[in-house]
Amino acid sequence: MRYFITFAYNGTDFHGSQTQPNGNTVQAEMEAAFATILRVPVALTFAGRTDAGVHAEKMVAHFDVEKALPANFAGRLNNLLPDSIAVSDICRVINEAHARFDAIERTYRYRITTRKDPFLYINHTRVAKGLDFEAMNQAAKWLIGKQDFASFCRTHTDVKTTICDVREARWVQENETEAYFVISADRFLRNMVRAVVGTLFEVGKGKMTEVEFKAVIEAKDRCRAGHSASAEGLSLVEIIYPKNNYV
Amino acid sequence: MRYFITFAYNGTDFHGSQTQPNGNTVQAEMEAAFATILRVPVALTFAGRTDAGVHAEKMVAHFDVEKALPANFAGRLNNLLPDSIAVSDICRVINEAHARFDAIERTYRYRITTRKDPFLYINHTRVAKGLDFEAMNQAAKWLIGKQDFASFCRTHTDVKTTICDVREARWVQENETEAYFVISADRFLRNMVRAVVGTLFEVGKGKMTEVEFKAVIEAKDRCRAGHSASAEGLSLVEIIYPKNNYV
Repeated sequence: MRYFITFAYNGTDFHGSQTQPNGNTVQAEMEAAFATILRVPVALTFAGRTDAGVHAEKMVAHFDVEKALPANFAGRLNNLLPDSIAVSDICRVINEAHARFDAIERTYRYRITTRKDPFLYINHTRVAKGLDFEAMNQAAKWLIGKQDFASFCRTHTDVKTTICDVREARWVQENETEAYFVISADRFLRNMVRAVVGTLFEVGKGKMTEVEFKAVIEAKDRCRAGHSASAEGLSLVEIIYPKNNYV
Repeated sequence: MRYFITFAYNGTDFHGSQTQPNGNTVQAEMEAAFATILRVPVALTFAGRTDAGVHAEKMVAHFDVEKALPANFAGRLNNLLPDSIAVSDICRVINEAHARFDAIERTYRYRITTRKDPFLYINHTRVAKGLDFEAMNQAAKWLIGKQDFASFCRTHTDVKTTICDVREARWVQENETEAYFVISADRFLRNMVRAVVGTLFEVGKGKMTEVEFKAVIEAKDRCRAGHSASAEGLSLVEIIYPKNNYV
């Protein structure tokens, strides 16, 4: 029996989402909690990986079990898991459903603040005042559409294709000091959102024009993009699956 | 020349506000930053102490310097201080002004949530659903006024008086899952807000009546109050001084 589990995590304390030889990860914490309750090892397949320090307000993973899950399984997981991981939902899916391959859209949010704030810094990146949001939004329009994002892909990755279909990419100013960038696509390359945001910062500071930003995309060369923006402002906020995945 | 410095801190990482033999404190971090910039030791006198894990959205301290402060001193402090401490203001006061003795009103907020949330847990205490806010607010009315709060004072403290003038004490429901208790007084005893909140939780769970809560106050006996609520939900949010303190 296959299930999808939906959960959120604060990436501050983790060395990324997925199991690595060194460092505690969200996956390791969750698989340990599963094993404690179910008394058998259960492997989780995540919808995607998040790098060290990156958060997820909504992550999905699938897993298989032979017996029906015990009562209040999500609540018992939450009791075992640290404060920084919260399970919100567990539901049956068809046996062919796949958390990673079936996702039809993912959305990330990158939050920034111009204030030093001892609570916001956990999931906001601090930036200098004076970013030109209108210029950043004009440039961001060039991201929309199905195109090659090799310029915003970490080098030395072995992905087969660097083509992504970006459906939304815009900055939203929440108030005088906070803003966020929201980007939705069918798929994302490693480091893509942080590379896009870092390059848009160049536009916002007046160091790159909208036309130069368009040329960066067209160059398909990682060296042309700006530095990656730092991890703490980035959160995976939505993953969408086809409705017929669920039973 | 005496100054007041206003700052905020996230108490999660600190063993309390003030210097102790073991453990890093907000005071130690700040005095280290002062010494780095001014190249002389400067002692900070805090408006009050906060226990380990308790936050401050607004704390005030006074300090004396012989020479005028360098340009952009607050900004330079913020660059040196960790993300969890943020200086918002530094202003000259009269030489007799005292951050602790002159404060005429202090306000604390105690935040709760019924959700497990990997971001809220930093400054919200998680509670079970179903607290009776109307009953807690009826009971909280008995806190208002100038009276003896010995029932809510940590034992073995050497304060001269346990009389406080409480001016506001009420619960506010923000939405279906979050709420906070706000309490203002001329002064607070050690552990007082957490003991008050812990006892109000008993009322909210139906384990103590409003009349019994009134009797707890009147007993002037710490053994009669409930357990102290945990630290993470508590924040010092305001301190008020007489206007003629400032130059």
